[in-house]
Amino acid sequence: MAKILAAVIPEPHASVEVREVSEPELEQGSALLEVELSEVCGTDVYLQQGRLAGVPYPLIPGHVSVGRLDKIRGRMSDVAGRPFAEGERVTFLDVHRTCNACWHCLVAKATTRCPHRKVYGITYGLADGLTGGWAQKLYLKPDTRCIRLGEVDSERFMAGGCALPTALHAVERAGVELGDTVLVLGSGPVGLSVVIFALMRGALRVLCIGAPEHRLEAARKLGAAAALNVETSDEETRAGWVLEQTEGRGADVTIEATGAPVAVVQAMRYTRDAGRVLIVGQYTDHGEVSFNPHLELNKKHLTVRGCWGSDFSHFYRGVQIMADPARSAAWSLLKLDRYRLGEANEALADVAAGKVTKALIAPQA
Amino acid sequence: MAKILAAVIPEPHASVEVREVSEPELEQGSALLEVELSEVCGTDVYLQQGRLAGVPYPLIPGHVSVGRLDKIRGRMSDVAGRPFAEGERVTFLDVHRTCNACWHCLVAKATTRCPHRKVYGITYGLADGLTGGWAQKLYLKPDTRCIRLGEVDSERFMAGGCALPTALHAVERAGVELGDTVLVLGSGPVGLSVVIFALMRGALRVLCIGAPEHRLEAARKLGAAAALNVETSDEETRAGWVLEQTEGRGADVTIEATGAPVAVVQAMRYTRDAGRVLIVGQYTDHGEVSFNPHLELNKKHLTVRGCWGSDFSHFYRGVQIMADPARSAAWSLLKLDRYRLGEANEALADVAAGKVTKALIAPQA
Amino acid sequence: MAKILAAVIPEPHASVEVREVSEPELEQGSALLEVELSEVCGTDVYLQQGRLAGVPYPLIPGHVSVGRLDKIRGRMSDVAGRPFAEGERVTFLDVHRTCNACWHCLVAKATTRCPHRKVYGITYGLADGLTGGWAQKLYLKPDTRCIRLGEVDSERFMAGGCALPTALHAVERAGVELGDTVLVLGSGPVGLSVVIFALMRGALRVLCIGAPEHRLEAARKLGAAAALNVETSDEETRAGWVLEQTEGRGADVTIEATGAPVAVVQAMRYTRDAGRVLIVGQYTDHGEVSFNPHLELNKKHLTVRGCWGSDFSHFYRGVQIMADPARSAAWSLLKLDRYRLGEANEALADVAAGKVTKALIAPQA
Amino acid sequence: MAKILAAVIPEPHASVEVREVSEPELEQGSALLEVELSEVCGTDVYLQQGRLAGVPYPLIPGHVSVGRLDKIRGRMSDVAGRPFAEGERVTFLDVHRTCNACWHCLVAKATTRCPHRKVYGITYGLADGLTGGWAQKLYLKPDTRCIRLGEVDSERFMAGGCALPTALHAVERAGVELGDTVLVLGSGPVGLSVVIFALMRGALRVLCIGAPEHRLEAARKLGAAAALNVETSDEETRAGWVLEQTEGRGADVTIEATGAPVAVVQAMRYTRDAGRVLIVGQYTDHGEVSFNPHLELNKKHLTVRGCWGSDFSHFYRGVQIMADPARSAAWSLLKLDRYRLGEANEALADVAAGKVTKALIAPQA
Repeated sequence: MAKILAAVIPEPHASVEVREVSEPELEQGSALLEVELSEVCGTDVYLQQGRLAGVPYPLIPGHVSVGRLDKIRGRMSDVAGRPFAEGERVTFLDVHRTCNACWHCLVAKATTRCPHRKVYGITYGLADGLTGGWAQKLYLKPDTRCIRLGEVDSERFMAGGCALPTALHAVERAGVELGDTVLVLGSGPVGLSVVIFALMRGALRVLCIGAPEHRLEAARKLGAAAALNVETSDEETRAGWVLEQTEGRGADVTIEATGAPVAVVQAMRYTRDAGRVLIVGQYTDHGEVSFNPHLELNKKHLTVRGCWGSDFSHFYRGVQIMADPARSAAWSLLKLDRYRLGEANEALADVAAGKVTKALIAPQA
Repeated sequence: MAKILAAVIPEPHASVEVREVSEPELEQGSALLEVELSEVCGTDVYLQQGRLAGVPYPLIPGHVSVGRLDKIRGRMSDVAGRPFAEGERVTFLDVHRTCNACWHCLVAKATTRCPHRKVYGITYGLADGLTGGWAQKLYLKPDTRCIRLGEVDSERFMAGGCALPTALHAVERAGVELGDTVLVLGSGPVGLSVVIFALMRGALRVLCIGAPEHRLEAARKLGAAAALNVETSDEETRAGWVLEQTEGRGADVTIEATGAPVAVVQAMRYTRDAGRVLIVGQYTDHGEVSFNPHLELNKKHLTVRGCWGSDFSHFYRGVQIMADPARSAAWSLLKLDRYRLGEANEALADVAAGKVTKALIAPQA
Repeated sequence: MAKILAAVIPEPHASVEVREVSEPELEQGSALLEVELSEVCGTDVYLQQGRLAGVPYPLIPGHVSVGRLDKIRGRMSDVAGRPFAEGERVTFLDVHRTCNACWHCLVAKATTRCPHRKVYGITYGLADGLTGGWAQKLYLKPDTRCIRLGEVDSERFMAGGCALPTALHAVERAGVELGDTVLVLGSGPVGLSVVIFALMRGALRVLCIGAPEHRLEAARKLGAAAALNVETSDEETRAGWVLEQTEGRGADVTIEATGAPVAVVQAMRYTRDAGRVLIVGQYTDHGEVSFNPHLELNKKHLTVRGCWGSDFSHFYRGVQIMADPARSAAWSLLKLDRYRLGEANEALADVAAGKVTKALIAPQA
Repeated sequence: MAKILAAVIPEPHASVEVREVSEPELEQGSALLEVELSEVCGTDVYLQQGRLAGVPYPLIPGHVSVGRLDKIRGRMSDVAGRPFAEGERVTFLDVHRTCNACWHCLVAKATTRCPHRKVYGITYGLADGLTGGWAQKLYLKPDTRCIRLGEVDSERFMAGGCALPTALHAVERAGVELGDTVLVLGSGPVGLSVVIFALMRGALRVLCIGAPEHRLEAARKLGAAAALNVETSDEETRAGWVLEQTEGRGADVTIEATGAPVAVVQAMRYTRDAGRVLIVGQYTDHGEVSFNPHLELNKKHLTVRGCWGSDFSHFYRGVQIMADPARSAAWSLLKLDRYRLGEANEALADVAAGKVTKALIAPQA
C-alpha cells in the first residue's frame, strides 16, 4: 500500500513532524484528495500552542485546502446533484457532520453551534485518518461537502482561504448597508477579507485599525480609505481618529477581527449611536475585558453580534465569487508565502510573528 | 393670575419642595393639562441624587402623566388629525422636539438618539415652565404628542407608566418568537412590564430573576413560570437554575432590566447559543463590568442589543393595548401607592428602598 | 404475519377502500406506530379529487397523526438525543427526507422547497409502505423526526393538526407586531389556528372574514374581535367593513388562508399602506386572478409573502405550546368529529362540504 | 422685480410653454436656487399626458435638480447643523412636508406614505410658486432638505437623478445578498441605476431584460453579465433564458422597473423558490394583470415587496456615493442629452420614445 507524507502536531507545544501514513481504504461515497495547497492560519498556531480545548492530538493541521480528486469510491455529488469525477479540482467545507437532527440544527437553526460537527484539521485528529490538509493526500469522508473549482485559481482562492467564508459571514451578519462607513479592527487574513467584502457589499468607506505596517498597506491596496497602526497609537488617538474620519459620529458598522479582548470594547466605543458591531476575532480564550454597559452599549442603542463559524452557504458563495475574475481581483493583491511539508514549523513561526500575510503549505513540492 | 402648586427638586441632593408657580400664557398650539396622576420612577430617584448629567435644576419631576385638558390655545390634533377638546382625558409622549431634521433622525432613523430631544420632567427644567407632572398643572408645549385616553383607566395606565413604552420597545427589539423561553433579569416596573409583554408576544415560558420577594411574587402573578431571588442566590445557583429551567441550554432571549452592570454579563451567560440579549436596564452610569468575549459572546454566536428610550410608536401602541380590558388586565394586578404633592420626598424614599412596586403622585389630592 | 387495516385512495376520484396490509419488517432506526388519531384536512379532499400533481396512487392519507410506539428497531432519538421507548406516545413531522445536501437546503436555506422531501400521506404512497395515518399502524421510516407527546392531550393536539405548524409558520413569517390589527381571510382549520397564533403573538385585534357562520362563531370564541361572512357580503361591503374596523386604514397584517385566488388580491386591498400580507391558502392550483399592481402593491408599499410548508422548528414549537394547558386552551374550543376507518368517505364528504370544523380518523375504533 | 423663465405644463395634454414668473419674496428659512440642471423623467411624460391623479395644473416639472444658492433668507442648515451659504452648489430632496405628526409617520414609520407630503415638480403646482426645476430659479421653501454637493459633479449626479434614491431604496429593500444573481426587468433610468446598485451591494451576476438595444448595451457597460431584448423575445424564450442563466433555478432577486403590469408577474415567475421580488416600476396606473397565486407566489415561498418613493436617507446616501469618484464612475458611462427650457417639448417627446437614455433641462442655457 502506498505511503503518504503528512505533517503532524504530535501533542501541544511539540514541533510538527512529517510522518508516513498508509493510504486508507475508501468507504462508499468517499474520496482521496491529492492536496495542492492547504493553509496555515492563526488557529494552526493555537493548535500547536495547545490553546484549543478538546482537540485530539496527534493531528494533521490544514482545514481549508484545494486539490485534485485522486480516487472516488461510489458516488459523490455537488449541491446540484452532479457527480464528481476523478481528476477534478475541488475544495470542500472543512466542517463535517453538522447533524441536521439536533435541537441546534432543527429548532434554533444555528447549525454552526451543532454539537456534532467536526472540523478537518482541527477537531478531527490523526486517529480519524488523513483528515488535515498538510499532507500529500486527504481523506474526504462520506458526506463531505465538496465544490468543483472549475475556473477558480487555486492561489487566489487560498489567498482567501478559511478567512473567505468567515469574513463573508461576518459582513453579512453585520448588516452592512449601501453608503455605510465600516471600521475593521484587525488586519490579519480575516480583517483583510472583511475589508474586501465590506466594500463588495456597498460600504462607501472602509477604515482599518491594525498592524503591522505591511498589512495596513495591504488594507489600503484593497480599498480601505484610511488605516491606522494600533501599535503606534494610544487609545485617545485611535478614538479621535475614528471620530475625525466619521464626521464626529463613529462608524456605522465595526467588525472586530483581532483576537484581543480589548478590541471588543473598542469596537463598541468606535461605533456611532444605533450602529452595528460584529465580533468575529474572539475564536480562542484570551481572558476577560472590562467595559461600561451604560456608555458603550445601552445608551448607544447598539446591536452587537458574535459570529461563530460559517456554514456551507458562506463557503459556496465565497467560491462562486472567487470564480469571477473581476470580483475576486482584490485577493490577488495579497502576498502569499509557500512552504513545503518539511517547512511547517517555519510557516507556523512566521504566521505567529506576523511576518507573512498568508502562509500556504504545498504538500507536493 | 392663578397660582399652581408644583413639587420641585431645587438642586442635586436637595429635598423636594412644593412651590407656587404662575400659570403660563399659552402659545399657539399649546395647552394646559390638569394633572390627575404622575409617576415616581427610578429615574426620579437618580434626579434627586444628581446622577444624571446635563439636567437643568431646579426641575419638576414626573415624565409620564395623565390628566384633563384644562385649556387649549389654537388647534392640537392627534395622529389621525382629529382635534383635541378641552375637558378630554389625555396622556402625552414625554419626549419632545425629536427634530426630524438631523442626521440621527433622517439618515440613521435612530430618533431616540436625536440630540435635540427634550424630556418633560427630566431634561426640561423649571426655567422651561411647568414641564413636569408633579404639579397641579402641566404646560403642553406646541408639538407635544398627546393621545386621547378614551376608555383607558388612569390607574391601570399608570401601573405601566414610563415602563410601558420602554418594555414594549425592549420586547419588540429583543425579537421574541412564538414558543421562546424568555428570561427577565430585574423585577422592578420595567422588568414586570417586560414579563407581561414577553408573554403577550408569544413567549411560552417567562423566567424572572429579581428581588425583593414581593416583586417576584408579582412576576409569578403576571404569568412568570418561575422566579428566583437574586439576593438569596449566588452566581452558581443562578446559572444552574437557568440551565435546569431550559433543558440545559439557556434562555432563548434574555432581557436585562436591573441597573446593575454585572447583570449585562449574566444576561449573556444565561442565554443559549445563537440566542438574543436585550439590555434596557443601564440607563445611568454605574461603572464597568468585566466579561469574557470569547466564551460569552463570540463562541455563543449571540445577538446583544442596547435599547435606548422609546418613540411615539411604542407609546401609542402601549396606550392602545391599555384601552383593551383583557389585554391590559395584567397591569391591574400591580399594587400602586399614591402620594400627595407634599409627600414627594416620602415617595422617592419608598421607591429608592424598593418598598413599593409603583408610586404615583396625585397632585389634586 | 399480522394484518393491518388501512384506508386507501386507490386512484383519483375513486372512493376510499379499507384494505389489509402486511406488517412490514422494520429497518434499523425505524418503528411501527399504533395510530391513535389522524386527521382529515382539505389536502385529503384534493387527493381524493386528484387535484395534486405527482401523487403516487394508491395511497393511505393522513399526514399529521398521533399514536403509540408499538415496536422500535434499533435506536430512535429526539432532538435532545434522548432515545424513544416502546409504548411512548408521539407525533412526528410529516415531512421526511429534507436532504440537507442540495442547493435549496444548504445555500438558500429554503428547506421547505427541498426537491427531495417526501410527505407521509401525500407524496408517499402505498408502494412506500404504511405511510399514512388512516391506518391501524404507520411505519416510521429511519430519520423520521418524532416528538414525545408527554402531557400533550391527543385530541387538543389534533384540533390543531397540520394547521398547527402551518399557522405558526404563517404568523411568524407575516411579522405580526405588538398592537397590530391582523385580518385573517378564511375560517377553516388553518384560518382558525392563525386567529389563535396572531393573538398569541401580540395582535391587539384580530378580524376574520370567512364562512360558514358556525366557523365565524368559532373565530369569535377564539378571540377574534369581529368576523364577517364572506358568503353573504359583496366586495364593497367587505372593503368598507375592513376600513371601518381599522380607522380607515386597512389591517396592519392580512393572512390569507382560503384557497380562493381572489382572496390573494383582497388580502392586498384590505391591508394598510406599508403593511404585510401573507399568503398561505394557495396550496393547490385554482387558476388565475387579476389585480392592479400599481394600486394594490407598489403604491401601497406592501410586503407580500408566500408561505410554503413548514419545517421541524414550526412543528416542534407547536407541540411545545400544546403541552402548556393555558397556552393551548383555545384549541380545546374547536369542535372535533371522529370517524372510524370505514367511515373515511363520509369524513371526506363532510370536510368538503364544510359541515365539520375538524374531522379525525380514529383507526382503532 | 426680476422676471424668471419657467417651462410650464398648463393642463393635461397641453404643450409645455415657457412663461415669465415674478421672483418671489423669501420667507424666513427659505432660499432661491439658480437651477443648473433639472431632469426629464418618465413621470414628467405622464404629467404631460395627464396620467397622474391629483396633480395641480398648471405646474413646472422637474423634481430632482442641482443648482447654486442664489439668495438665502435667515438660516438653512444641513443634517449636521452646518448653515448653507449663498453661492454654494446644492441639491435637495424633492419630497417636502413629510409631517412627522401623523399615524403613517409616527406609528407605521412609513414616511413615504405620509399623506401630507408634497413633491416639487409633481404635486406642487405653479400656484405654489417656483416649485419645479424646469425654471431659471426654484424656490426652496422652509424645511426643504438640501444637501451640499461639494465635489459632486453635477452631470454625473444628474445621470442618476431621481433614479438614484429610487434605485438605492429598491436594492436595499430587495435585500440583495453577497453572491446573489439579480435580475433587473427594465432598462430605463431606474433599471440602469438598479444594475449599478445591485452590483455595488454585492450581487455576483446581474441580468437585465429590457429595451431598446442601446439601453441594453448601456446595462452591459455598467456591468450586467447578460441582457435580453424584451421586444424581440417571447415569453417562453425569456423564461428559458433566465433559467439558463441561473442553473435552472431562477434569479435570487428580481427587481421590476418597467411600468408594464405584466412585468410584475414575470418578476415572480423568473425568481427562484424562496427568492425576493421588488416592484418599483408601477408608479402609474396601467391597469390590471392576471397571475396564478399558487404557482407564482405561494408554492414558490416568495417575498414580493412594493417600493414607493424614497426618503431623505436614500437621497443623502445617494449623494454621498456620488461624491466618491470611484464608486460613482458607472454613472459617467450613461449618455446625457441636454435641452434648453424652450426645448422641453422635444425633451418630453424623446423620453417618451425611448430615444435618449437620460434627458436634462439646462435652464441657464
